[in-house]
Amino acid sequence: MIVILKKNADKGQLGNLISWLESKNIQVHESIGESETILGLVGDTTTIDINLLNALDIVEDVKRIQDPYKKANRKFHPEDTVVNVGGVSIGGGSLTIIAGPCSVESEEQICAVAESVKASGASMLRGGAFKPRTSPYSFQGLRADGLRLLEIAKEHTGLPIVTELMDISQLPLFEKVDMIQVGARNMQNFELLKALGKTDKPILLKRGLSSTYEELLMAAEYIMSGGNENVVLCERGIRTFETYTRNTLDISAVPVLKKLSHLPVIVDPSHAGGKYELVPPLSSAAVAAGADGLIIEVHNDPEHALCDGPQSLKPESFNKLVKKLSLIHNAMREEF
Amino acid sequence: MIVILKKNADKGQLGNLISWLESKNIQVHESIGESETILGLVGDTTTIDINLLNALDIVEDVKRIQDPYKKANRKFHPEDTVVNVGGVSIGGGSLTIIAGPCSVESEEQICAVAESVKASGASMLRGGAFKPRTSPYSFQGLRADGLRLLEIAKEHTGLPIVTELMDISQLPLFEKVDMIQVGARNMQNFELLKALGKTDKPILLKRGLSSTYEELLMAAEYIMSGGNENVVLCERGIRTFETYTRNTLDISAVPVLKKLSHLPVIVDPSHAGGKYELVPPLSSAAVAAGADGLIIEVHNDPEHALCDGPQSLKPESFNKLVKKLSLIHNAMREEF
Amino acid sequence: MIVILKKNADKGQLGNLISWLESKNIQVHESIGESETILGLVGDTTTIDINLLNALDIVEDVKRIQDPYKKANRKFHPEDTVVNVGGVSIGGGSLTIIAGPCSVESEEQICAVAESVKASGASMLRGGAFKPRTSPYSFQGLRADGLRLLEIAKEHTGLPIVTELMDISQLPLFEKVDMIQVGARNMQNFELLKALGKTDKPILLKRGLSSTYEELLMAAEYIMSGGNENVVLCERGIRTFETYTRNTLDISAVPVLKKLSHLPVIVDPSHAGGKYELVPPLSSAAVAAGADGLIIEVHNDPEHALCDGPQSLKPESFNKLVKKLSLIHNAMREEF
Amino acid sequence: MIVILKKNADKGQLGNLISWLESKNIQVHESIGESETILGLVGDTTTIDINLLNALDIVEDVKRIQDPYKKANRKFHPEDTVVNVGGVSIGGGSLTIIAGPCSVESEEQICAVAESVKASGASMLRGGAFKPRTSPYSFQGLRADGLRLLEIAKEHTGLPIVTELMDISQLPLFEKVDMIQVGARNMQNFELLKALGKTDKPILLKRGLSSTYEELLMAAEYIMSGGNENVVLCERGIRTFETYTRNTLDISAVPVLKKLSHLPVIVDPSHAGGKYELVPPLSSAAVAAGADGLIIEVHNDPEHALCDGPQSLKPESFNKLVKKLSLIHNAMREEF
Repeated sequence: MIVILKKNADKGQLGNLISWLESKNIQVHESIGESETILGLVGDTTTIDINLLNALDIVEDVKRIQDPYKKANRKFHPEDTVVNVGGVSIGGGSLTIIAGPCSVESEEQICAVAESVKASGASMLRGGAFKPRTSPYSFQGLRADGLRLLEIAKEHTGLPIVTELMDISQLPLFEKVDMIQVGARNMQNFELLKALGKTDKPILLKRGLSSTYEELLMAAEYIMSGGNENVVLCERGIRTFETYTRNTLDISAVPVLKKLSHLPVIVDPSHAGGKYELVPPLSSAAVAAGADGLIIEVHNDPEHALCDGPQSLKPESFNKLVKKLSLIHNAMREEF
Repeated sequence: MIVILKKNADKGQLGNLISWLESKNIQVHESIGESETILGLVGDTTTIDINLLNALDIVEDVKRIQDPYKKANRKFHPEDTVVNVGGVSIGGGSLTIIAGPCSVESEEQICAVAESVKASGASMLRGGAFKPRTSPYSFQGLRADGLRLLEIAKEHTGLPIVTELMDISQLPLFEKVDMIQVGARNMQNFELLKALGKTDKPILLKRGLSSTYEELLMAAEYIMSGGNENVVLCERGIRTFETYTRNTLDISAVPVLKKLSHLPVIVDPSHAGGKYELVPPLSSAAVAAGADGLIIEVHNDPEHALCDGPQSLKPESFNKLVKKLSLIHNAMREEF
Repeated sequence: MIVILKKNADKGQLGNLISWLESKNIQVHESIGESETILGLVGDTTTIDINLLNALDIVEDVKRIQDPYKKANRKFHPEDTVVNVGGVSIGGGSLTIIAGPCSVESEEQICAVAESVKASGASMLRGGAFKPRTSPYSFQGLRADGLRLLEIAKEHTGLPIVTELMDISQLPLFEKVDMIQVGARNMQNFELLKALGKTDKPILLKRGLSSTYEELLMAAEYIMSGGNENVVLCERGIRTFETYTRNTLDISAVPVLKKLSHLPVIVDPSHAGGKYELVPPLSSAAVAAGADGLIIEVHNDPEHALCDGPQSLKPESFNKLVKKLSLIHNAMREEF
Repeated sequence: MIVILKKNADKGQLGNLISWLESKNIQVHESIGESETILGLVGDTTTIDINLLNALDIVEDVKRIQDPYKKANRKFHPEDTVVNVGGVSIGGGSLTIIAGPCSVESEEQICAVAESVKASGASMLRGGAFKPRTSPYSFQGLRADGLRLLEIAKEHTGLPIVTELMDISQLPLFEKVDMIQVGARNMQNFELLKALGKTDKPILLKRGLSSTYEELLMAAEYIMSGGNENVVLCERGIRTFETYTRNTLDISAVPVLKKLSHLPVIVDPSHAGGKYELVPPLSSAAVAAGADGLIIEVHNDPEHALCDGPQSLKPESFNKLVKKLSLIHNAMREEF
């Protein structure tokens, strides 16, 4: 951490600050110049509140050098984490395809989609039971009933299931769910993150609409610091001024998050683009950028889907896409 | 609602669509041109899912004309709503000043700040007990103990209190709180909004970091559609690419939200700017733009505040600011 | 175009508006509902100024349905445009690699890089002579001398050259340049675009830092409407709140621009990421998303480059990358 | 400037770096810790290219501490600059109102508006002759003829005139123009800025749509480093994801730019909001935030304006607004 002092900073206050820092086992190196004085703080500064320093009368600015996350940080955990979800691995060089409808609508629908995506090569089933909708007047999901239908589809196909939890109070209902999804709008629902940190379920953590990489990793840190290290990060598009697409897929998130963290990183091309015709190019780009997996919306009848129809692939398109993704994944593994 | 059809849209499918819309009491006006056909849907389209239409094979695009919010909409409720919070009015032409520390730290601190801001002209007390922090390693607030201290400060000064609730499970603790704050990161925590819609407490709803006006009003609609119409909207800065300020205060939100909705609109200049020296100009701008109130961080000892010290005003600066705001508020009420 | 009228719009004014529109060969279809009246305008509305309509007292809102660009629009030109740059084709299914240093620094440097990238598979040379720098105190490029050095490198290697023009007055110097680059900051320098529309040089048009797809296509339209249809679009990252990367590569721009327009679309992974280690994954993603080419910064000595060193690849890394991109490009052409 | 070294940085390379820095009269202070080594560079680092350092193999990151602008920097020029425009002062505590139509349309129009705004209290006239339009098919302004009409209006009323220049080649036409406007889209047209730096005309420099405060100040620095220190900064709204308003007025820009720089700061509420009904609240907010002036679009017949009609005030509304702004300006000057 670097502390830049104001010109003519009071010597007494400076002395107090240095003593306080040294009492926290921080070494302080002073660089005195004509127009500025800089303190270099060396040691474990993660416990120092940057706001506290910033508020001091003698301080002009504070710049952090160390990352504020530890458990999610690749520096302290160089090898890739592989998360096991009901027997399916995510991370470590493989490509995991998760697919299914936006919403669970009926037993027939979820079972048909599950069988279809399994046949095409998906190894996990997604489907929304509790649905975050911007309007209170929109379909809110089948909720507990939807979870039950997902469990039936899991029994039929053997595919592990992932679905979104919207509130701590729903946790007891998720016992048979293999991976719990935290939606983009809940990425900084800190009480929820803490509660999930006390479970042993794998967590699929979606990046918030306007969250930075660091904020996403700090959200993962909330879960991990509670004891649950089975976190999968998901890039699903950020909000920009472009309105043609639903969101803007930040493809750089894949290599950057994998550099900063050891956690697996997957991509949701369906919510990122918001249009089914963008799903194949965005999925291909994600695999080429090094993603550990994809979570794709597939619906057997997108025109009558109860939500997000426009961004769902039909099963036959999904089948072709998985073949192409496999080719790209192989190309990426060639060494030169 | 306007539906733009694809070129050469199938006549049979078009007939089905029109019949379905008419069965929902929507009149359909068809405009057939050489290069495009447009359907004008007239009637109450709030129950029509725009995604459903968009997913149809024959549809190129759908544009909404009616606002998706009803209870929050000024069109259906032309006069200003005035929210009563423990005897203090927000809205309807007055200027309500809410002030207090970022975090409740001790009985001495909260009582001292409460007395000081009351003497300067504040009519409500703010103070964080449950604190949303980006790092799990930062101070998380005094939580239930903090609420108790706020209640003591309320007893001492008679000021109604407003404080943030982070999870539904905390609701029982908030019985003596006069107004419940929903933080920016929880603005689209829909389960929380639904739960608050079932209470009769006034709600201070902060705009999300990257939320649009419409999304903020839809969040209010969630609360109001549950039966609780005592909602106060709060602009607190949005995220942009500018990093000098903590957030970018969207001052236009004040006149726009007041045009679109009848709900009171207040401004949080402390979180918007993130620096105490920006609080006076941003507060002045907010009053000049027509805000119904302000929520300002004041701390008797910002240099030792446990959070957000750099953005807190000292009591003497707050005292001067309130005098200036009163002058501006009077100027704004002059008629020409 | 759709015109939504205000409630109780004056009948006389409405009659005037309809007559005026009809005099412009626009058919007007009126949809009258209880709470709103909608006019559907059918015909060629590109010449109607949307602002003029919006300013009318009786108008609530206007929504455009037709795209405002014609010459760049795929609707009126379904087949891909292939731009010929000194014998090298861009567009139409091939993958064109343009490479070279950020700045031309010396004859030795530019010739060495040119030979190296040619050997690795690049078919065009890039290099900056006129440099747009945010600081007046930074190196501004070798300017006219740099152009001369590029021409020497072209003679040595046979590679066509592309370089940035910053002002109309520089045009005469660009006679031997094969493709003229318009930088992101000049994308809406309309006088420059008009001047380039009068030349017959291929133009590499970079997307502005916060431009929409439509604005980029309208900038292309400026050039094309002047008579020069040899325009290549370039996605080079947009500005977002994320500061870890220099810009945020909007990978969706590739499939979307190719859907909306017949012009070739290439990607600049070097400026998008701003870090050399991001160039391989972003290049791979661009090819997988369907880009017609890439423009990549390569420097034989990035540590001593006079600008943008951190984002330049070394020749050996570039060599490996081109091999991988070729594999991905082949995979993308497989049909299923 | 702070240089953070990579772990296990090569000692030889580090020695070379330190020698090179010392040869540039930079003192280097080394802080060696267990997990990181930091170099504090003390001295005039504006000539050190941050990219050069960043590209070095041994460097992890570089953080700048000094501002990169000098001539625009308040640190080196503490007192307010007052720019004299044809006898009218901008800056230094007064409130300067500039008003006029978006486009000059005819002699009658510009003279009528000029007389009207003068009578209401404006002290300068604005009006577009060269118009930057996103579409090549939109009205591009009367160009040279428009300048001539502005000069006639100036003769009639005595009001100094400000109008936009779009290309260096237009400079000779601007001899009688009192202040030259650089539009938002040209804020980083560096060749244009350099050319304006060689003139002695006051320059109205508008902030780019997605520019930071620092970039705006660096654009001013381009002009000032050429010898022309008569620069007035103008906040006119930035691009965000909110689409209800044309742009988002960044009201914080006023106090922040005035803190960082000694140059006058004015606000353009018309382009910021894009709707005439937002002009009064945004203008009021700007004055309350400390702006040195406003540039407001006024049209005697906004419904028939050739551009930007929806955001123009009618003369009677402008007249009332100026009275209100005067009241607020007086309130702001009260001392407590």
